[in-house]
Amino acid sequence: MLKVGIVGGTGYTGVELLRLLSGHESVSVEVITSRKEAGIRVDEMFPSLRGFFDLSFSEPDIEQLGGLDLVFFATPHGVAQEMMPELMKRHTRVVDLSADFRIRDVALWERWYRQKHLAPECIAEAVYGLPEVNRELIRGARLVAAAGCYPTSIQLGFLPLIKAGLVDLSTLIANAASGVSGAGKQASVANLLSELDGSFKAYAVAGHRHLPEIEQGLADISPDPAGLSLTFVPHLLPAVRGIHSTLYARLNDTKVGLQALYESSFQDEPFVDVLPQGSCPETRTVRGVNMCRIAVYRPQDADTVVILSVIDNLTKGAAGQAIQCMNIMFGLDEKAGLDQPALVP
Amino acid sequence: MLKVGIVGGTGYTGVELLRLLSGHESVSVEVITSRKEAGIRVDEMFPSLRGFFDLSFSEPDIEQLGGLDLVFFATPHGVAQEMMPELMKRHTRVVDLSADFRIRDVALWERWYRQKHLAPECIAEAVYGLPEVNRELIRGARLVAAAGCYPTSIQLGFLPLIKAGLVDLSTLIANAASGVSGAGKQASVANLLSELDGSFKAYAVAGHRHLPEIEQGLADISPDPAGLSLTFVPHLLPAVRGIHSTLYARLNDTKVGLQALYESSFQDEPFVDVLPQGSCPETRTVRGVNMCRIAVYRPQDADTVVILSVIDNLTKGAAGQAIQCMNIMFGLDEKAGLDQPALVP
Amino acid sequence: MLKVGIVGGTGYTGVELLRLLSGHESVSVEVITSRKEAGIRVDEMFPSLRGFFDLSFSEPDIEQLGGLDLVFFATPHGVAQEMMPELMKRHTRVVDLSADFRIRDVALWERWYRQKHLAPECIAEAVYGLPEVNRELIRGARLVAAAGCYPTSIQLGFLPLIKAGLVDLSTLIANAASGVSGAGKQASVANLLSELDGSFKAYAVAGHRHLPEIEQGLADISPDPAGLSLTFVPHLLPAVRGIHSTLYARLNDTKVGLQALYESSFQDEPFVDVLPQGSCPETRTVRGVNMCRIAVYRPQDADTVVILSVIDNLTKGAAGQAIQCMNIMFGLDEKAGLDQPALVP
Amino acid sequence: MLKVGIVGGTGYTGVELLRLLSGHESVSVEVITSRKEAGIRVDEMFPSLRGFFDLSFSEPDIEQLGGLDLVFFATPHGVAQEMMPELMKRHTRVVDLSADFRIRDVALWERWYRQKHLAPECIAEAVYGLPEVNRELIRGARLVAAAGCYPTSIQLGFLPLIKAGLVDLSTLIANAASGVSGAGKQASVANLLSELDGSFKAYAVAGHRHLPEIEQGLADISPDPAGLSLTFVPHLLPAVRGIHSTLYARLNDTKVGLQALYESSFQDEPFVDVLPQGSCPETRTVRGVNMCRIAVYRPQDADTVVILSVIDNLTKGAAGQAIQCMNIMFGLDEKAGLDQPALVP
Repeated sequence: MLKVGIVGGTGYTGVELLRLLSGHESVSVEVITSRKEAGIRVDEMFPSLRGFFDLSFSEPDIEQLGGLDLVFFATPHGVAQEMMPELMKRHTRVVDLSADFRIRDVALWERWYRQKHLAPECIAEAVYGLPEVNRELIRGARLVAAAGCYPTSIQLGFLPLIKAGLVDLSTLIANAASGVSGAGKQASVANLLSELDGSFKAYAVAGHRHLPEIEQGLADISPDPAGLSLTFVPHLLPAVRGIHSTLYARLNDTKVGLQALYESSFQDEPFVDVLPQGSCPETRTVRGVNMCRIAVYRPQDADTVVILSVIDNLTKGAAGQAIQCMNIMFGLDEKAGLDQPALVP
Repeated sequence: MLKVGIVGGTGYTGVELLRLLSGHESVSVEVITSRKEAGIRVDEMFPSLRGFFDLSFSEPDIEQLGGLDLVFFATPHGVAQEMMPELMKRHTRVVDLSADFRIRDVALWERWYRQKHLAPECIAEAVYGLPEVNRELIRGARLVAAAGCYPTSIQLGFLPLIKAGLVDLSTLIANAASGVSGAGKQASVANLLSELDGSFKAYAVAGHRHLPEIEQGLADISPDPAGLSLTFVPHLLPAVRGIHSTLYARLNDTKVGLQALYESSFQDEPFVDVLPQGSCPETRTVRGVNMCRIAVYRPQDADTVVILSVIDNLTKGAAGQAIQCMNIMFGLDEKAGLDQPALVP
Repeated sequence: MLKVGIVGGTGYTGVELLRLLSGHESVSVEVITSRKEAGIRVDEMFPSLRGFFDLSFSEPDIEQLGGLDLVFFATPHGVAQEMMPELMKRHTRVVDLSADFRIRDVALWERWYRQKHLAPECIAEAVYGLPEVNRELIRGARLVAAAGCYPTSIQLGFLPLIKAGLVDLSTLIANAASGVSGAGKQASVANLLSELDGSFKAYAVAGHRHLPEIEQGLADISPDPAGLSLTFVPHLLPAVRGIHSTLYARLNDTKVGLQALYESSFQDEPFVDVLPQGSCPETRTVRGVNMCRIAVYRPQDADTVVILSVIDNLTKGAAGQAIQCMNIMFGLDEKAGLDQPALVP
Repeated sequence: MLKVGIVGGTGYTGVELLRLLSGHESVSVEVITSRKEAGIRVDEMFPSLRGFFDLSFSEPDIEQLGGLDLVFFATPHGVAQEMMPELMKRHTRVVDLSADFRIRDVALWERWYRQKHLAPECIAEAVYGLPEVNRELIRGARLVAAAGCYPTSIQLGFLPLIKAGLVDLSTLIANAASGVSGAGKQASVANLLSELDGSFKAYAVAGHRHLPEIEQGLADISPDPAGLSLTFVPHLLPAVRGIHSTLYARLNDTKVGLQALYESSFQDEPFVDVLPQGSCPETRTVRGVNMCRIAVYRPQDADTVVILSVIDNLTKGAAGQAIQCMNIMFGLDEKAGLDQPALVP
């Protein structure tokens, strides 16, 4: 039985970790921390978990966390890097769901996140937690920086094309839309139901923090990443969960069978599902599950390829992916705790 | 391994049965029928089930169904009663999720459903499938008529009060609201997103078909049901899942501790959760799970009691309840396949 | 041309006043105040108003406000009472959309709002702003306390029955549901789309601040209000706008023709619409308009009457009602600025 | 007073025409036809219009329609072309909201709409109803083919760039999302709230019928349209109204000031609003109004331009645009009946 802890358990990725771990037979959640809610029972804050956890939130304690097999950080960026140097001296391994260790270029991270990085020495040790790209490195990692939500859907969508060098890397476009749970559980006017219901908008068009992460990831996949440039436009859905990325690129070679390429690329992946030709993935088909569904098109037989890629931002885009990484790190069945169908309708 | 079949598997209760049974370790779904979709793969119609079932819809076949351990009817009313007489001659046991065998008074059924009942002889054998009331009878039943969605939330909500004879039975009011998945997956203008989103309304105020079922159930619970009369007003939520019943009655005796009464009444029930005093159950806390959450109030210390009772209409109100009944019928752990937290947020 | 000002214009009732007044030919909005947003252009905060108002938010200034024909208070409770004593010394008349002057019993107000009332002397002069009850008093009022949202829908729904003495006043039940815009435009976790979408719940069951306002209003209508007692249970819809009240009472006399009673009671009211028998009002049919639609039922011909009453909480429940009061106060056409159909679908 | 008729008044564009025309002081709706609902009162089908129209649906009658000043066709494609030849012999002028006369190349129309065109002779006389491009032609037209919803948002978004020859026409991408009212008021499973709520998907990626209309319109705008090719991917929002188009193109010239170009291009247009730099238009800011709001970006100062363009599909994308065309045709104030702010929140 793995003993795990969750730092920052009051947000949406925290409760998603708890929901998924409640069904994981090899894991026991020993600690869940929240400075603000210390002392409050978990099921008081989350009545949906009544009967599943006999836990209260506690103040984070390095000694206690350091004695666990694994610690998940479900915190805003900036928190994991504060505790990591001390934690790395202990026994425990870490999966960080935040952005603290995803970008290898510290200066780039500091520019986009507008703060000094407190643990640049840990970045080198961090493995980028996208199992479809880095499975072997994740296996041996002490610190996994789980891939972000938009980045996961976009990288998996582009992966076969970029790996095979089939597209003009200077023409990449990612038009993505996310449910608002991606913005977290903070008091805000902008994310009130009254502000969002029945409406739709783009945001952060001038530059979203996931851009450098995605560009780094796509470059890592590419045999020749020179000139790679992505236009990334995120949008906000009037919905709780789900990311839908619509990806565009110019094909260098229009003779390749795209459907076959995608199917073969992901045939051994437990959490990527290439849909039959002509399908359009709906975000609800991945609601609450650790799955990425993909479809590929070449409209009008022109040289622009269109890829549709959907995930649940809280699951394959956060908590599910973190558990998938944990399963790999500890030699468990990669699907443990993650093997159920989506809630439809 | 129980071999089960689902008749009428293309609707919302059908896909909900499949979703839940995919995680039930003692059950194998052998057959799923649909006259209209015969030959179509289940996961073509429900992409959320890709990888979970290697099944296609087939024409219903009495011989085939009769050889199974259990058949679920997830059909509109009128279908189960057509096949039941033949099926009852075979080996199989049945859980009917429709209204065909819920009402013992055939004439009453025929008046509300405006058609002749085709198998009145089966009604006598049918056990009303509300485990919190009829657990022992369900255990031995060949035919279980699973309780309806509104009726489940309302009966469980009133149960402790009526059983204890604490309220004036002539003053019962059930003000309930349901997600629109309760109306099923039929082409209709009335249930288009464009017609319902952002709006709310009552419907069937003059008389809803669940009224006689609820009145029969409440009378069964009561030590002295004379004069029992229920005003039942259903409403339609701009949401997919969830039933919220707000129940009102006049107390005969205002000295009883209502919170303690409710807690003790349901303390051994795996799927009824009495919330701490002062809580209000949200329908999302039961989304996708077989649970009824209840709170009880006496506002202004007056003699009107208010009970709040929520379920997911497709789960505790349909497919989950049917599986709970199945578990009881076959001596399985009552929670098998039904023991996970709700999808929140 | 009436010169009007709006105090506290950044909330949802403020923007609703602006939207409706933009189409009122006899009114000019001269001032709109917000301490927090002073200096910001109105159309920067509300892009939907681009081209309609050349105004910026300003600090509230008694002299300036006092020189206007009318001031609307679209503020949380507690603000109007602070400024009113000074304002009452000036020329201006006031419509207060908050709860500050609705309740005549100061001690009752202070108990429910948990603060000391700062201008009890103004309460006596205030006229309760429900035109269907108080039209003549409103005409001459200097200070109108516009009726609240729940109270409007509930009082109008019960009005014909209570005025005619047809129901047992000890059995009144108001089961109401509101869109979340009623909670205002404050940063909060509870009202995030992620917390509310697809879910439904009751709240404030033990006691909501609108209860004393409604009881006072119903007693005022009644020829003999002794023993009047209301059970009021509000619920929160996953929707922006709309209040639906489902009202229950015991009839003293079941021989009265309820449909005819309701139609005749409201036949001269421009903003109350009694639907044909058998209809159920949808909240969307009053979206954005100053209208209350009502239907009346006696299910199963029993002695419980059921009334359905819908309004838009921001319009007939707030800004529209305030403008209706203004029209009456200044002898304008009561429908001026308020005469358009709802946005459907 | 213009006497107008509406053919096919039971759908969403029909009720939107009625809503907007109820506030148009120079127009009287004399006739509204529906074969299926003939005899039914308009306000029985649309309770939101109670008190605004004393009209019933009638069978379409060429003589009656031919005597009106203007007839709107709010029908599915295929209907207007059936009646047009006879109607063109009469006095009346026509605004067709369907796709029947939008595409000049009959063969192209027949290929995309998979049916024979019944009135090719009328196509030549039809003027494409996009006032920002064709205002003068509309003024004199007998038959206006009002521009489609996606086409309006996309053409207005690209207009300044393409007119000025600033982008590579072979790289145009239109990633658009629409509320489901665009699919009309037909009974269907696909558009049930239960199927769409909380979910998002692309559709018709291989080819949508609006593609040839958009390509024709963009070519008309361009000084040199050779090689123009558009990739158009529509998506379905879990919302009733609103189209958001996110447009991408490669700039030929990155020195042009895009904000100034857009502002000057539309400075005299009453229904196109270029937002201040850095804004993102929300679809709710055009809800129910005849307005297109646009923002323009050049992310990371790269050579890909991003334009955001929002309209209400039923208003500027259908009924509002049709009324704008009518106003132009009859020399009325172009804003008559169309000059109010959007319903926000």
